[in-house]
Amino acid sequence: MSDTLWNRRFEGRETVPLFESYNASIATDRFLADADVAASQAYARGLHRSGILTGEELASVLRGLEIVRERIRQGENLDRFEDIHTAVEFLLLDEIGEPAKKLHTGRSRNEQVVTDERLYLKKMILEIVELIADIQIALIQAAEEHDSVVMPGYTHLQRGQVILYAHYLMSFFWPLERGKARLRDALTRVDVLPLGSGALGGSTIALDREYLGRLLGFGNLSENSIDAVSDRSFILEVLGVLLLILLDLGRWAADCVLFASAEFHFLDFDDSLAASSSLMPQKKNPDILELVRAAPGRLFGCLSQLVLVVKGLPSAYNKDLQEDKEPLRIGVSTTLDALRVVALAIPRIRPRPESMARAVDDSLFATDLVDYLVEKGVPFREAHALTGEIVRVTGTPGRCLRTLSDDEYRSFHPVFGPDVKDLFDPQTSVRRKRTPGSTHPEQVREQIEQAKRIL
Amino acid sequence: MSDTLWNRRFEGRETVPLFESYNASIATDRFLADADVAASQAYARGLHRSGILTGEELASVLRGLEIVRERIRQGENLDRFEDIHTAVEFLLLDEIGEPAKKLHTGRSRNEQVVTDERLYLKKMILEIVELIADIQIALIQAAEEHDSVVMPGYTHLQRGQVILYAHYLMSFFWPLERGKARLRDALTRVDVLPLGSGALGGSTIALDREYLGRLLGFGNLSENSIDAVSDRSFILEVLGVLLLILLDLGRWAADCVLFASAEFHFLDFDDSLAASSSLMPQKKNPDILELVRAAPGRLFGCLSQLVLVVKGLPSAYNKDLQEDKEPLRIGVSTTLDALRVVALAIPRIRPRPESMARAVDDSLFATDLVDYLVEKGVPFREAHALTGEIVRVTGTPGRCLRTLSDDEYRSFHPVFGPDVKDLFDPQTSVRRKRTPGSTHPEQVREQIEQAKRIL
Amino acid sequence: MSDTLWNRRFEGRETVPLFESYNASIATDRFLADADVAASQAYARGLHRSGILTGEELASVLRGLEIVRERIRQGENLDRFEDIHTAVEFLLLDEIGEPAKKLHTGRSRNEQVVTDERLYLKKMILEIVELIADIQIALIQAAEEHDSVVMPGYTHLQRGQVILYAHYLMSFFWPLERGKARLRDALTRVDVLPLGSGALGGSTIALDREYLGRLLGFGNLSENSIDAVSDRSFILEVLGVLLLILLDLGRWAADCVLFASAEFHFLDFDDSLAASSSLMPQKKNPDILELVRAAPGRLFGCLSQLVLVVKGLPSAYNKDLQEDKEPLRIGVSTTLDALRVVALAIPRIRPRPESMARAVDDSLFATDLVDYLVEKGVPFREAHALTGEIVRVTGTPGRCLRTLSDDEYRSFHPVFGPDVKDLFDPQTSVRRKRTPGSTHPEQVREQIEQAKRIL
Amino acid sequence: MSDTLWNRRFEGRETVPLFESYNASIATDRFLADADVAASQAYARGLHRSGILTGEELASVLRGLEIVRERIRQGENLDRFEDIHTAVEFLLLDEIGEPAKKLHTGRSRNEQVVTDERLYLKKMILEIVELIADIQIALIQAAEEHDSVVMPGYTHLQRGQVILYAHYLMSFFWPLERGKARLRDALTRVDVLPLGSGALGGSTIALDREYLGRLLGFGNLSENSIDAVSDRSFILEVLGVLLLILLDLGRWAADCVLFASAEFHFLDFDDSLAASSSLMPQKKNPDILELVRAAPGRLFGCLSQLVLVVKGLPSAYNKDLQEDKEPLRIGVSTTLDALRVVALAIPRIRPRPESMARAVDDSLFATDLVDYLVEKGVPFREAHALTGEIVRVTGTPGRCLRTLSDDEYRSFHPVFGPDVKDLFDPQTSVRRKRTPGSTHPEQVREQIEQAKRIL
Repeated sequence: MSDTLWNRRFEGRETVPLFESYNASIATDRFLADADVAASQAYARGLHRSGILTGEELASVLRGLEIVRERIRQGENLDRFEDIHTAVEFLLLDEIGEPAKKLHTGRSRNEQVVTDERLYLKKMILEIVELIADIQIALIQAAEEHDSVVMPGYTHLQRGQVILYAHYLMSFFWPLERGKARLRDALTRVDVLPLGSGALGGSTIALDREYLGRLLGFGNLSENSIDAVSDRSFILEVLGVLLLILLDLGRWAADCVLFASAEFHFLDFDDSLAASSSLMPQKKNPDILELVRAAPGRLFGCLSQLVLVVKGLPSAYNKDLQEDKEPLRIGVSTTLDALRVVALAIPRIRPRPESMARAVDDSLFATDLVDYLVEKGVPFREAHALTGEIVRVTGTPGRCLRTLSDDEYRSFHPVFGPDVKDLFDPQTSVRRKRTPGSTHPEQVREQIEQAKRIL
Repeated sequence: MSDTLWNRRFEGRETVPLFESYNASIATDRFLADADVAASQAYARGLHRSGILTGEELASVLRGLEIVRERIRQGENLDRFEDIHTAVEFLLLDEIGEPAKKLHTGRSRNEQVVTDERLYLKKMILEIVELIADIQIALIQAAEEHDSVVMPGYTHLQRGQVILYAHYLMSFFWPLERGKARLRDALTRVDVLPLGSGALGGSTIALDREYLGRLLGFGNLSENSIDAVSDRSFILEVLGVLLLILLDLGRWAADCVLFASAEFHFLDFDDSLAASSSLMPQKKNPDILELVRAAPGRLFGCLSQLVLVVKGLPSAYNKDLQEDKEPLRIGVSTTLDALRVVALAIPRIRPRPESMARAVDDSLFATDLVDYLVEKGVPFREAHALTGEIVRVTGTPGRCLRTLSDDEYRSFHPVFGPDVKDLFDPQTSVRRKRTPGSTHPEQVREQIEQAKRIL
Repeated sequence: MSDTLWNRRFEGRETVPLFESYNASIATDRFLADADVAASQAYARGLHRSGILTGEELASVLRGLEIVRERIRQGENLDRFEDIHTAVEFLLLDEIGEPAKKLHTGRSRNEQVVTDERLYLKKMILEIVELIADIQIALIQAAEEHDSVVMPGYTHLQRGQVILYAHYLMSFFWPLERGKARLRDALTRVDVLPLGSGALGGSTIALDREYLGRLLGFGNLSENSIDAVSDRSFILEVLGVLLLILLDLGRWAADCVLFASAEFHFLDFDDSLAASSSLMPQKKNPDILELVRAAPGRLFGCLSQLVLVVKGLPSAYNKDLQEDKEPLRIGVSTTLDALRVVALAIPRIRPRPESMARAVDDSLFATDLVDYLVEKGVPFREAHALTGEIVRVTGTPGRCLRTLSDDEYRSFHPVFGPDVKDLFDPQTSVRRKRTPGSTHPEQVREQIEQAKRIL
Repeated sequence: MSDTLWNRRFEGRETVPLFESYNASIATDRFLADADVAASQAYARGLHRSGILTGEELASVLRGLEIVRERIRQGENLDRFEDIHTAVEFLLLDEIGEPAKKLHTGRSRNEQVVTDERLYLKKMILEIVELIADIQIALIQAAEEHDSVVMPGYTHLQRGQVILYAHYLMSFFWPLERGKARLRDALTRVDVLPLGSGALGGSTIALDREYLGRLLGFGNLSENSIDAVSDRSFILEVLGVLLLILLDLGRWAADCVLFASAEFHFLDFDDSLAASSSLMPQKKNPDILELVRAAPGRLFGCLSQLVLVVKGLPSAYNKDLQEDKEPLRIGVSTTLDALRVVALAIPRIRPRPESMARAVDDSLFATDLVDYLVEKGVPFREAHALTGEIVRVTGTPGRCLRTLSDDEYRSFHPVFGPDVKDLFDPQTSVRRKRTPGSTHPEQVREQIEQAKRIL
């Protein structure tokens, strides 16, 4: 049963159940119930101020909507309604009778749905930002706890240079910080009240939109009623940002899965994060981390879906836009779940410093060797080529560099002195880095302090 | 509660409810219950043949699985299980006790899940192919019913040439036929039994895989156990095909929405397909058609999600692959819904021949004019250029071409005779087309016959 | 020929031309030449300050780089180099000899490429913002020029309410304004100097990164060297924003194509925007507008490509990231082209007020009829239902509402008076809208003023 | 300069260079030149048969087109033309004069472009199929060469069971075989002649389409002219198949990168596949393999782009479809490049059997232990649980299982005998697998034979 409130236009028409159910969005849009009630209460106040509702009617509507919200929260079956807006209006009619018939005066579902979505999204963005901060705190704590642990830093999945594990951990802090910044920026586009736009041309009621905005906590009013009812870019933007956040979390999870393999074994993860195999009893699989690695898939699905839906649509509201609700709901809930899981997971993943140290073979000091030569006056390109030759001749990986004698070094270049051996120490290596943002322990310390200041 | 059947590996571990629920796929994979029971029954027969199960145990398992299927069909709450495989095995244990503990001998969930998915998909593909045929029949019926109706054919949304409405309708038949062919081709890749692949290396039980394949109706056996448990390209291929089908349906729906606008008004659609506006009482909106237009969005979302999930994964099974279930389920159900809706919608959309005829203005005969000149010996490029000039001078659109006098025509080129006026008739115009596949009524007739032969 | 400067590591290796060409990015990254030269000049100054380059060497390097830039601008063939960084360094060596060998001291291509990309993108974002402003100005001019033209406003592609053409035009202003805001926000993430991050762990040279940042005009320094060399989210974010902008332009173009059809004929477009048909001489096809409608495809392709590339990568630099250049270059150039085309196209598209007015049939006043009843005290839902009935009985579309007699109106409801006929006038209808952001001429006027203030 | 051959429709119009260049596709569609010439030659023969061209004119046209093809192959600058069709026609006019003006009689660029694309794609598909076969041969050769090498098989990137390296290699053979099958299936949809469809309604020339089809080697004729000129699903289907192929190659490449890391070190790759670092002289980075891993990104970009372009388009030809050329060209060339690279790379990657063997720790025999217990009559679930306990108690990884004494084993379960120690041997383990498709050496041998039969 759909739009029975206003269907005298189609009186006597055949109803096709398949069409009715295909048309309905109620299976999806229950998550907007609270927002729809809140927006309806504000609208009722607006109607009262404009003289459409009497004080008594307003009181009745406000009270009735409270009851409606409670009924829905208690699990009221809404399947008989087309959508959440119809459901709320109907249930209100059921509760308070006549005054309910005035609530929709001058209002359109076209503006209602985006008002609801924006209210919902504003709340969710704040929740997501907080959850990100939880993860950031966990990262900082782990970094501080293990602040002297060294490990190989990789590029191309080949060992590159010695880095601090804390530096590695902090490399996830900043992407998340950007994620928060992007969300806050997106919030300024979400934080716009469409109510008062009518179906597409504005309202004939002299609504005080500023007042409505204040009631609902919106910072801005939409500037053009056509734009207000048809824009979905605020959802696309947020989905895009959430995708970036999940790509970052997914990269962290992929690293963890890799580092937890028997071959790397840089990390131990708690049994609570693991699953066994139904067939292979020895397995301790990092299922939770793998699912986090997969999570951006869902977000990208949501984004792709909505991009395809809006493409090619004519201006103003089209029913196709109903297909924004599923991506919105799934995009947000997928993100919330992944963030919560990661925040709990970080402290359950512990580094194995001795494994990491074992992986710091001499090849990782090759850059230090180059720098040594540069410091002794060899032009960089020659120093680089020479070191490449030393590495090639001695063979990698292993303990090659430290086993060469002083004479052998000098046979490569006369500037080599016995102090070359001082290079081959991980702590020395990280301390040779000097730039802000580098893996030098002081710089990592400063980085962590900066991170704390931000939070 | 997850993997309690086999968790002695992790005895005494802390359980984190959030991780448990994040890990579980039971909320999604209930749709595989029937397939999982069928595959388990076949597997039990295989175990019996290999001597793992006694005749009595087999009978008990088979009967127990029937009951399990029924319990799930009746709505048994499965939330306490990790996934559908665990649920079926547990419920079986609950029903028949000890023999249930042997069912999983040598079997892995890695092979189970793809066996289930393939069984499910084989069934769904056949259903989809049948639904497509329903739509094709509806198209043929509509084409035959309105076989003499003419309309403007558009390119660039500008009027191009006169065509038959039946020819236009049939232009949707062939894409759907390709959709069926693609599905049938994909079916050969779906129709492969993975069972017997174990976790990744094969089974130590001397399973008769041919026998298992016959029992479950599979046409082929997987050739490599690693490939068998990790391949998801059969799902990606099907999602891709379904996307193409929905893009075709979506284009049909987009045309209908356009042709149902007041400006075109080539089509009337039944009230059952329409929805009204909550604010504008005059509206008769083609909501159902708009939702069909939007439907490819969902498929593209499913496809994009799964592509992103599988990208970058290491070989063999990874938990990430669990994220194939939601795209599979939603992709299939979205397609089924859209196909059913369109099959019902086609007979509820009626052409308005007089509106179409009114839109056949003289500009649509310009190509006929070119052809006329070519037939009289004017080289094509000159004929084309000359006609362009005539159109420019007389102004379009409207009845321009027929209002020029014979003398005026001759002033453009001496080959013009009074017979030029015979061109300006829609039925003549479509009959001038001669090639197979053209809009000539005989060719359209032949096209429809060919379509019927195919079905 | 690749990395010959530093290949002593692989001395004597076989070279496989196919691998060499597959590895090279020089075919793509020429667009970064200016940025690479500028970044190298700044880096040279940094090296000088750190004592690596003497004043003389610095002068030589700076001058040499000027020449290199000029050679590349003049079209120097760079095919023999692996990438733009190698090309610049080699050409410099060719120009100035020895000092060139010091330029790369402590520098990595990993940081170079993102420094270049960020420099490039900063410049392009400003250019795009300016081009958007050009379009906005064109929209305002068109809106002011045609400020009293009325047209039907559509939802579901069905006529809904009367709106001002100027209001419709301005509905594209605000999405573009959001596009600019998103770009400016993204700019804060782009405007970060990675130089000084080395390969992944920072630099052993005591580089003054603040100084480098000032030289290159960066507002911020990267905080973590691993993050600095591996992050590509700044490109993904910008591509996402450009996609949203092109979706807006594409919707405008789609509307224009539709409104330029013979059936709507709301717009005339200049011959310069049109193409003819190679076969149908009468055609005036809106090719340019159709290509703008298609433009988001390219952006979405770029975004999807890069999302897939980064997914699943391990931390820090991987060669896969080289695949960011093509999406970056194509994404930016596609946007620039489309923006320039639209800015030129807007003044070449003229409304046809009389066609628009003709399309304003009586059904568009149905909402006014509802409001009339509400003002006379009929509850909204009854007023809506009653009007629906009137519309159904009188039949749409057409001049139905104004032809009913006063008695007939009263037969529907006693509150109807003769003043009901005053409703059926387009200018009256738009003036009945009262809310800020509505289509009321005063509100549209105010909207335009607000838009001007913003620019 | 565009469409000057037929622009008398727009005589005297202003030309806007930006619009001209935006409209042109000549920068992209040069790759269709050969196909366009071939299709034009066939069309000329068709016109001759229909009496439009005299024998002399035909000879002139055929000869002229040969020259045109040669001029284009020699690098003729085509920038002054709008597209390849116009270019060919113009150059022909330039070569042979008058008869060239008849070539386009009854022909439309709408049908030309898809005829060209289909010709091109048919050829490319065959080339791709052959290149895939090259890779398959390389895989078989490597599998045969190393047919007794064992390695750990992974799931969840955790060691699971012992497998043969040859079995692992062959797990890439079958996905590629499916890729070929999909291409062959797609070919039946590509292999359809659209010529004779005119602009959208068919041709007024009595063209013998069967004859045209035979001349051009097409197996089928399009059945509906509207469908013929507007369908792009044949490109989308092929792009989808190519994406699946590249995802498989990408997974192989990702495995190689992983296995080539110092931590796994299962593979050595040739220096020719490597690149060094501009800063870290010791690095031997698998750049080529990383680029193969990234290659699906480009294909997915192409697919996504074209999906977005076609979505929402009205029926029949729209200019937007011009945007199919870039995805087609890039999709095909990206695939060709990646296939060629992989075929050359496989023999340059060598396994390190001793590293693989070292990684086969006792945990990999846990499933064998379960099977041992099952064979001795312990129900599977108990055997699984018991083994899990043994693993937990003894601790993984390492040589845990073989160090337990017979008594210790019996303390877990009385069925344990001294023969349990026989399990802990890799060759025994792979031989215990029995099913077809398993990693048992005989089965792998049979698998390879089957693969050879297929090729």
